[in-house]
Amino acid sequence: MAFERITEANIASYLAGLPAMQGLFSSFDDLDVREVGDGNLNFVFIVTNRRAPDETVVVKQAVPFLRVVGESWPLTRHRMDFEVAALERFSALCPEHVPAIYHSSSDMSLVIMRNLRDHRILRHELIDGHLFPRLADHMSTFMARTLFHTSDLYLAHDAKKQAAGRAINIELCKITEDFVLTHPYEDNETNDYNPALPRAAIDAIQREPALRAAVGEIKYAFMTRAEALIHGDLHTGSIMANADETFVIDPEFSFYGPMGFDPGALIANLLLAYLSQDYRQRAAGRDPAAYRDWLLSVTREVWEAFEAKFLALWRDEDGRRGTSFIGRDLDGHSAEAFRQAFMRRLFADTLGFAGVKMMRRIVGLAKVAEIATIPDLEERARAEVAALRLGAELAKGRAGFAGIGDVIGLARELSAR
Amino acid sequence: MAFERITEANIASYLAGLPAMQGLFSSFDDLDVREVGDGNLNFVFIVTNRRAPDETVVVKQAVPFLRVVGESWPLTRHRMDFEVAALERFSALCPEHVPAIYHSSSDMSLVIMRNLRDHRILRHELIDGHLFPRLADHMSTFMARTLFHTSDLYLAHDAKKQAAGRAINIELCKITEDFVLTHPYEDNETNDYNPALPRAAIDAIQREPALRAAVGEIKYAFMTRAEALIHGDLHTGSIMANADETFVIDPEFSFYGPMGFDPGALIANLLLAYLSQDYRQRAAGRDPAAYRDWLLSVTREVWEAFEAKFLALWRDEDGRRGTSFIGRDLDGHSAEAFRQAFMRRLFADTLGFAGVKMMRRIVGLAKVAEIATIPDLEERARAEVAALRLGAELAKGRAGFAGIGDVIGLARELSAR
Repeated sequence: MAFERITEANIASYLAGLPAMQGLFSSFDDLDVREVGDGNLNFVFIVTNRRAPDETVVVKQAVPFLRVVGESWPLTRHRMDFEVAALERFSALCPEHVPAIYHSSSDMSLVIMRNLRDHRILRHELIDGHLFPRLADHMSTFMARTLFHTSDLYLAHDAKKQAAGRAINIELCKITEDFVLTHPYEDNETNDYNPALPRAAIDAIQREPALRAAVGEIKYAFMTRAEALIHGDLHTGSIMANADETFVIDPEFSFYGPMGFDPGALIANLLLAYLSQDYRQRAAGRDPAAYRDWLLSVTREVWEAFEAKFLALWRDEDGRRGTSFIGRDLDGHSAEAFRQAFMRRLFADTLGFAGVKMMRRIVGLAKVAEIATIPDLEERARAEVAALRLGAELAKGRAGFAGIGDVIGLARELSAR
Repeated sequence: MAFERITEANIASYLAGLPAMQGLFSSFDDLDVREVGDGNLNFVFIVTNRRAPDETVVVKQAVPFLRVVGESWPLTRHRMDFEVAALERFSALCPEHVPAIYHSSSDMSLVIMRNLRDHRILRHELIDGHLFPRLADHMSTFMARTLFHTSDLYLAHDAKKQAAGRAINIELCKITEDFVLTHPYEDNETNDYNPALPRAAIDAIQREPALRAAVGEIKYAFMTRAEALIHGDLHTGSIMANADETFVIDPEFSFYGPMGFDPGALIANLLLAYLSQDYRQRAAGRDPAAYRDWLLSVTREVWEAFEAKFLALWRDEDGRRGTSFIGRDLDGHSAEAFRQAFMRRLFADTLGFAGVKMMRRIVGLAKVAEIATIPDLEERARAEVAALRLGAELAKGRAGFAGIGDVIGLARELSAR
């Protein structure tokens, strides 16, 4: 089948022609179709049978250009192949946190999946100050299972290398390399600064050699460390949740990269939410302490539960095999010594990626709504200055934090009024 | 053309049928053919026209099993594709240190190249106590050029990732993962110990959690860090030299791996030569000091000249481009700060790989002749104990050495009588 753009006009006949849709829709004659893609890359349609509203799917299609810019920025639509492959892999490893896929087509660069109509994008929910008591538990499970089971700690040497070779994702990695790891730090013309943000705060991340060197090392790690199949864009806009359930979506940036990138992205976005909520809770007439404390408790639990679950999977697997990545454990303590050293390094990597992701959301092209939409530019700048300082300390000092508690303490300190 | 084993019987007719040989040989009627492969993997023939001895080539063919074991250890002959690709890449980057390739055939899994008849395998020359005044200069040039120009510091992001994807070398990496990075440390049945080696010296690298954890981290780095096209087996048996020239051969282990692996291999083998020469020079009736000092001076210069040349290539390239891996250098010191941080990490990686390579040559399956052929087992054990201690300190303390001078000081200390 040749590639064709899906539109409100042709989507019904397209769906009606797919065998996989016959069991999901009782008819295709009266479909409600809404284009809801708020991302930068793709078109997303929610399709619902008006005669039977439980019959509903999401259709996501990649088009051969960067949507946010337009047809002047070509981007092959084959990125959808990476997204579908990652969704399928993640779903096999962690089905309760990945939406069911009903159909996918490489020719059409599209995927049809469950419409998560009872869930909302986590970022918007956090902006509105809602609590998600199971969020840290769910996300730590998702990351532990997907990262452990796609790594050399679990996979056979050949399966891992073949999988990494298939997942080389040149175009989407380039977006991260440029917009996350380079442009924000070089005063690029694509950067976008709050006019109230003091020049000194920008200079501190663009003209300080120790910070630039640290960001360079973190960029180099992103480009060279093929550790596991990572989501590659695991911020709070890639999570849909309600009180009971949590789903990870949009893994088009996935590739075999450094494990710390995913927990780093999530922690960065939780800390940005924390920094934004001093203003937001006050603006809503509430004492910010309770909600901000909850955000920090989630940050802590995301790391601590991830670490515990990752280690539990690893110890169980080694126990089953009777050997370990390092080979036979002759003295009974060596395998665990390696695991502990591994987790210390992974924690440092995580903090480094968290740091660069925080800074880029302040000075780079792509913002986070919780901070960028603060209407009072001075209030916005307060949160931004704290985010830049915290990001810089995490990037430079990533190997020096004893635990997530130290990170949380620093976040509190830097955002104190 | 179907694969066929080259033998003394069929090689003349095979060469006579190749267009590329017509300019090299005036006739194929009276060829001297000698099989000289002393490696573990391949067959190597030196072919010379008895009527015109300047007409001579080397023919190297991979066969579909591990030669040292026999047909019971299958290994695809397609490893020759990796060797040819690496020879061609290295030759383009550093022609003066790579033998000219006259012909290669993927179907036949063979390569025909210059016969380096005026050069000898460096390991044998070092055993015999010969000096190579240009060795460190040549090898530092080879490593700086090949590693820099195949890395993300030089290549475009897409070219690098495509090259890394093409160079995934599953089978040969597995040999390193097992025989260099696992078996020696787990008391594997393939290990081979000098009976005079004290059990405590073996236990110190097999039953010490801090050492086992360090080796695990180094193995993980080998398996996950796709930094540059590395040779992958750059010991003194992969170098042919005379007083004027130095050539690197046998890159069948090449893949996109950690840069430190190549300088680490070379430094490890120079240090092993150093440790062997206390006995060997005395056995030859000479004061060992002079030759051992020369070996340490080569060790020092290999690293220091490599670092200087790598940095010079990098600074020149950044100067030409007007930007750097980290992006624009706004304050004039950031690009250099990143370069210095990069070289510190690369030095630590190099020492880690040097350490594991020293240890595996003592307790693993594959030995180095300079130590393994010391006839007095107690003398041999003295060198081996020093090698294990030095290797363990390099692996565990790899991030703590201020410079190569500290490494040399430790080598002297651990081998003092």
